[in-house]
Amino acid sequence: MKSLFKASVALTALIGLGATAAYAETLQDVMKRRNLTEKDLMAAAKTYTPTGGRDEFLAFSSGGQSGQVIVYGVPSMRILKYIAVFTPEPWQGYGFDEESKAVLAQGRMNGKDINWGDTHHPAISETNGEPDGKFLFINDKNNPRIAVINLHDFETQQIVVNPVMASEHGGAFVTPNSEYVIEAAQYAAPLGGEYAPLSEFNEKYRGGVTYWKFNKEKGRIVPEESFTIELPPYSQDLSDAGKLVSDGWSFTNSFCAERYVGGIEKGRPPFEAGCSANDVDYLHIFNWKKAEAVFKAGKVKKINGHAVITLETAAAEGIVALVAEPKSPHGVDVSPDGKFIVVGGKLDTQASVYSFEKIKAAIDAKNFSGKDPYGLPIIALKDALHKQVPLGLGPLHSQFDSKNCIVYTSLYVDSQVAKWDYCEGKVLDKISVHYNIGHLVAMEGESVKPKGKYLIALNKLAIDRFNPVGPLHPQNHQLIDISGDKMEMLYDLPIPLGEPHYVTAISADKIQPLVRYKYGTDSRTGEAHKMAVRPGAEKIVKEPGKVTVFATAIRSHFTPEIVEVEEGDEVTFHITNSERAQDEVHGFAISGQDINLSLEPGKTATAKIKAEKAGVYPYYCTEFCSALHLEMQGYLLVKPKGYKDTAATGKEGQVYTKADFDKQYKTNIETQAVIDAVVKYITSTNFKDFPTVVALVEDATDQLKFAGEAKQKADDAAAKQDWQQATLWAGQWWQYQVKAADIGLRVKTYLEEHGAKVVAK
Amino acid sequence: MKSLFKASVALTALIGLGATAAYAETLQDVMKRRNLTEKDLMAAAKTYTPTGGRDEFLAFSSGGQSGQVIVYGVPSMRILKYIAVFTPEPWQGYGFDEESKAVLAQGRMNGKDINWGDTHHPAISETNGEPDGKFLFINDKNNPRIAVINLHDFETQQIVVNPVMASEHGGAFVTPNSEYVIEAAQYAAPLGGEYAPLSEFNEKYRGGVTYWKFNKEKGRIVPEESFTIELPPYSQDLSDAGKLVSDGWSFTNSFCAERYVGGIEKGRPPFEAGCSANDVDYLHIFNWKKAEAVFKAGKVKKINGHAVITLETAAAEGIVALVAEPKSPHGVDVSPDGKFIVVGGKLDTQASVYSFEKIKAAIDAKNFSGKDPYGLPIIALKDALHKQVPLGLGPLHSQFDSKNCIVYTSLYVDSQVAKWDYCEGKVLDKISVHYNIGHLVAMEGESVKPKGKYLIALNKLAIDRFNPVGPLHPQNHQLIDISGDKMEMLYDLPIPLGEPHYVTAISADKIQPLVRYKYGTDSRTGEAHKMAVRPGAEKIVKEPGKVTVFATAIRSHFTPEIVEVEEGDEVTFHITNSERAQDEVHGFAISGQDINLSLEPGKTATAKIKAEKAGVYPYYCTEFCSALHLEMQGYLLVKPKGYKDTAATGKEGQVYTKADFDKQYKTNIETQAVIDAVVKYITSTNFKDFPTVVALVEDATDQLKFAGEAKQKADDAAAKQDWQQATLWAGQWWQYQVKAADIGLRVKTYLEEHGAKVVAK
Repeated sequence: MKSLFKASVALTALIGLGATAAYAETLQDVMKRRNLTEKDLMAAAKTYTPTGGRDEFLAFSSGGQSGQVIVYGVPSMRILKYIAVFTPEPWQGYGFDEESKAVLAQGRMNGKDINWGDTHHPAISETNGEPDGKFLFINDKNNPRIAVINLHDFETQQIVVNPVMASEHGGAFVTPNSEYVIEAAQYAAPLGGEYAPLSEFNEKYRGGVTYWKFNKEKGRIVPEESFTIELPPYSQDLSDAGKLVSDGWSFTNSFCAERYVGGIEKGRPPFEAGCSANDVDYLHIFNWKKAEAVFKAGKVKKINGHAVITLETAAAEGIVALVAEPKSPHGVDVSPDGKFIVVGGKLDTQASVYSFEKIKAAIDAKNFSGKDPYGLPIIALKDALHKQVPLGLGPLHSQFDSKNCIVYTSLYVDSQVAKWDYCEGKVLDKISVHYNIGHLVAMEGESVKPKGKYLIALNKLAIDRFNPVGPLHPQNHQLIDISGDKMEMLYDLPIPLGEPHYVTAISADKIQPLVRYKYGTDSRTGEAHKMAVRPGAEKIVKEPGKVTVFATAIRSHFTPEIVEVEEGDEVTFHITNSERAQDEVHGFAISGQDINLSLEPGKTATAKIKAEKAGVYPYYCTEFCSALHLEMQGYLLVKPKGYKDTAATGKEGQVYTKADFDKQYKTNIETQAVIDAVVKYITSTNFKDFPTVVALVEDATDQLKFAGEAKQKADDAAAKQDWQQATLWAGQWWQYQVKAADIGLRVKTYLEEHGAKVVAK
Repeated sequence: MKSLFKASVALTALIGLGATAAYAETLQDVMKRRNLTEKDLMAAAKTYTPTGGRDEFLAFSSGGQSGQVIVYGVPSMRILKYIAVFTPEPWQGYGFDEESKAVLAQGRMNGKDINWGDTHHPAISETNGEPDGKFLFINDKNNPRIAVINLHDFETQQIVVNPVMASEHGGAFVTPNSEYVIEAAQYAAPLGGEYAPLSEFNEKYRGGVTYWKFNKEKGRIVPEESFTIELPPYSQDLSDAGKLVSDGWSFTNSFCAERYVGGIEKGRPPFEAGCSANDVDYLHIFNWKKAEAVFKAGKVKKINGHAVITLETAAAEGIVALVAEPKSPHGVDVSPDGKFIVVGGKLDTQASVYSFEKIKAAIDAKNFSGKDPYGLPIIALKDALHKQVPLGLGPLHSQFDSKNCIVYTSLYVDSQVAKWDYCEGKVLDKISVHYNIGHLVAMEGESVKPKGKYLIALNKLAIDRFNPVGPLHPQNHQLIDISGDKMEMLYDLPIPLGEPHYVTAISADKIQPLVRYKYGTDSRTGEAHKMAVRPGAEKIVKEPGKVTVFATAIRSHFTPEIVEVEEGDEVTFHITNSERAQDEVHGFAISGQDINLSLEPGKTATAKIKAEKAGVYPYYCTEFCSALHLEMQGYLLVKPKGYKDTAATGKEGQVYTKADFDKQYKTNIETQAVIDAVVKYITSTNFKDFPTVVALVEDATDQLKFAGEAKQKADDAAAKQDWQQATLWAGQWWQYQVKAADIGLRVKTYLEEHGAKVVAK
């Protein structure tokens, strides 16, 4: 252990550095002015990430009722993206283009659009028990669904609706090689959706756990290879899959084994009283490999076409066993070695550590203390327990450290995190959080190889932590340094949209997304888009009642720019972004229409509208893509039915002469000289050592090629003494030059800032 | 100017402090490990905000195509809230409850829902030319609309549709006392929505500027007191209102005075070529006070029921004058004293500073150089110009410093910010940004009293600045320290959702939002909700085909918990959150339904569904509100048509005996002892000096009152030897105790962390 500043001799070195730069304030001045302690400065140094810096980990957070997933970097705690999942989001075109509408349509329930979700638990696909960064799964509690997000582009590609549950909570959790995505029911209801009165609650209401088969090659859940295990109406809750020694097993807890039905309006105590009356609920232990075999053997009942292993079959085949777990359990977390299962109880003061070895022995020996009313065997707590460890009030969820036997547990009522040793059953440290922590997340803290270093407390209340922004507060995710013996609070991140419940974090180097799509990709299927066209092949196809536009977008124009249709036509735009440059996204919107496309380089997307009312509808690019972005416009002209065009051609707003042409030509020649100078500088350096620069140079080369094409058109028009066309094409030539120059200047700055060397003679 | 570390003697003091704490790493270790320079450390110290710290400024950012507004703190650069404006957002219940659906319905166009917006320019309501923090206005470029957000709760309360434009861009800008919200058209189209062919572009296509009258007392735009000035089809762009000497005037620029119509598909050069062909466009100068008088005198044409001052009237009455402005102008910004107007041209190298005094003199003297084709007078550039100042490539937008004559201008093509003196016309400093900056924002930098200190570059490209998250990148808002002579880069903020264009920033102390609503408020109207009920008055009202539920929510149950309806019924839940505690929000969702409520303390909101299909639909609270949050559930039972209930009562899942009751009773008595001890500690301190604590104590007192009521019910049932009810009510009594204890523990931590003193004897 060292003090914050190791020694004054080291500081002298730091001062030495400081002397070269001049500041209006010293560091001490700033600390005093901003009321920062030495500890704060240390936390700042541990989290601050300068421009261009990279985070070591990426956290994928549920977005709660926003229906989305939130991605942020650790330790900078900067939110990098909201991924649209269950809720339409126009910036991403999600729900505003036809391709993503098809994804959302997969999530319809009873034929109805559901335009939101209550996301709870994200999970990254795993290989050998480690997150592999390929896919992300997220559940919807209210409308029991699971979504699949492809992490090669951070887009939602699939939504599956649970065909038998009315609500769920304990999803998504994955098995160690992503064989299955686990989804456990929450509030009991008759499986499959039929009505039954509450007087038949014990007999007809059921819980369940669905195992969704995942095809990793295709990146899709396969419903027909998936099955559900029917369960008693115990209000199943969170789950976790076994790993290593416990691979092939999974664990799901429950919070209302009392099977209480409220009715405060009739004088009955509310659900909260009846569901917390007993001191224990049931942890469900599943042998999913055995369940899979039973499913494959066809020993299932079909409900809504979906395979259900009934309670009777589950009991008869020994697929499920129960063991008591403490009051109002929430998290159920399998240790990295797969040997222990840690369960917290929100109304308890201790965490319970179960031994998988003991559980397995009891099951193998059929050493049960009895059966529940549904015939499921119950293991006596003593025959399953490794230890119970007093932690504080309201243990909720646990995450594991890279250090052996070390686990962190959130304490909801105490608003604390406990660090403890689950092997020895010893509390090592506690830290206060703000306030009422729900889940917590450690870096790859659910995997077989946790990475340690950081822990994030996902607090349910922020109250006074941030500047006030009205009665609805942001959430507060607090970053904690766990690299030392004592936990140290580093940073408060307000979550500005949604109420996250659960986060999963992965080493950033495992996430290697695309920069651009292969030309003409439908990003929602990942396949070639049949309606993509190359520049030059754009066309407008007219059929009775139907106009289809095959368009391209490049900075800064669409082709075509003018589309004429008739009132009542169905108009479809298939637009391909023909850019190759990173981050050169275009958008597409039409005045007064409920569509917006997000066209990343290479993507093809479709906007479909009904031209209901005659009129003039400007369209434009909704992403600021170049200096001439505002001019990236067009007109959809919807003519009244039977409207007769006059032959008249519009008068040009501005007429250009040879003098105008000559002036523009001169400008272009001068501009080219500037560009040549920049090119000379760039090519004199070791620019090829910088992949970012190589990509930019490629883009600038494209622009200069386009400039050459426009120059050719200008020259051709000039040869015909068409000064109007000649001047305007010369203008377009100059626009491409400006774009090339823009990139060239960025390259120059980049090379200077990254210490490029002049290498050419 | 001082060096980073003033002197080693000061550092010794810092080391002295350091020695008291022990860390695994020294500051130097951390800097080395994280590759931080001394400059980075300084930037970290200038931005890092420890837990509970407050930001000095709040920035309100447009959310671009997300349709929302983003709120972040400066200098911490933490995003505090996304405010749902044009796009439904379920976390806020926006578009998922009936009250907010009514706001969104105001924004329908041609009878169609528009579920997104392209937000561009937020503006805060002003008093005497300073932002007053009361209301925020934001425009929608694609679907020409303006929204009003009430900053007392950060909720959208009004949307108005422009009745004559097809698209807009130059809104929202407000006059110095928020008399009007200015909205300027963008892409020309026939006013009012009728069709005209492009061959009649010059004759029938028009631009315009709408002045929306704002009633500050009611917080609403008043359409019938609003008017539009018809303008030539020049593609009007950004605007700004005059202030002080130029109060009563406003300024709007344009980017296609060429009136070019593209058509690349027909071989015509694209819009970008034709709209940038000339070296100048027109700055429009409006005498809005005169326009207001003309409007009030009734000299208007009505289009779609909206008052339009025609071009002829505008010309005849001397309401509009034009002056040349440089190539592809964007920002038009009035200096704090109202004397100068700064205009940048994206394809220019200089900024143009106009003198309002000169402009006024020219207009007063009718000193015009000619007229445009529509009869509008043109002022010669030399008669309006103060100075033109070469800044670099692509000057785009300017914001003012607290220091006299100092302005900052974004340079799009150069990817830089220039600091310069607009009085003397001298460039003072430049800084590189990453990359392609669009707008920029200084603290209250558009007001009569800019606050200086910080500037934020709103960059259109991020490219390599952050960990990659797929082809669609976050935006990059870069915080710059402008307190010294040289600009210093401090922080890169990725914007994770939407593409912001414009930001306005205000001193945080001017924003004083509510913590809770008055009991039973409809937050979208700000008025008492007619359907609110107090606890105890909840009811279910059944009419043929219609069931209305008047409900309350408190942690952690709804009243009622069971609602029975028949297939086909329209079911409406009016729910009031009866909490008083800050941040104690509840949600409400029903399985498989497209509704979600966000119920902040005191709010009443309405969920309406059609019970289309018989079945069992759990409902629950979607905000994690207490340890028993998951148990905050209920059932909507939709019976099949004509279903006959049996008289049977359901068997209890769990039967309780006197022994159970006695056990729970004993627990409660013990728990009360713990609570008493905490209360004793709290009341022994100066807790009344802490408003946060006073509010918490009030909440805890509520919980203990509820505990007392539950105890009474338990006692009553016990007296009747009804052990079932007695045990469960005793459980509920304990639940309230736990909630009180939860708050008590938070209070205790707060008091300890904030240095409360024991004062009682």
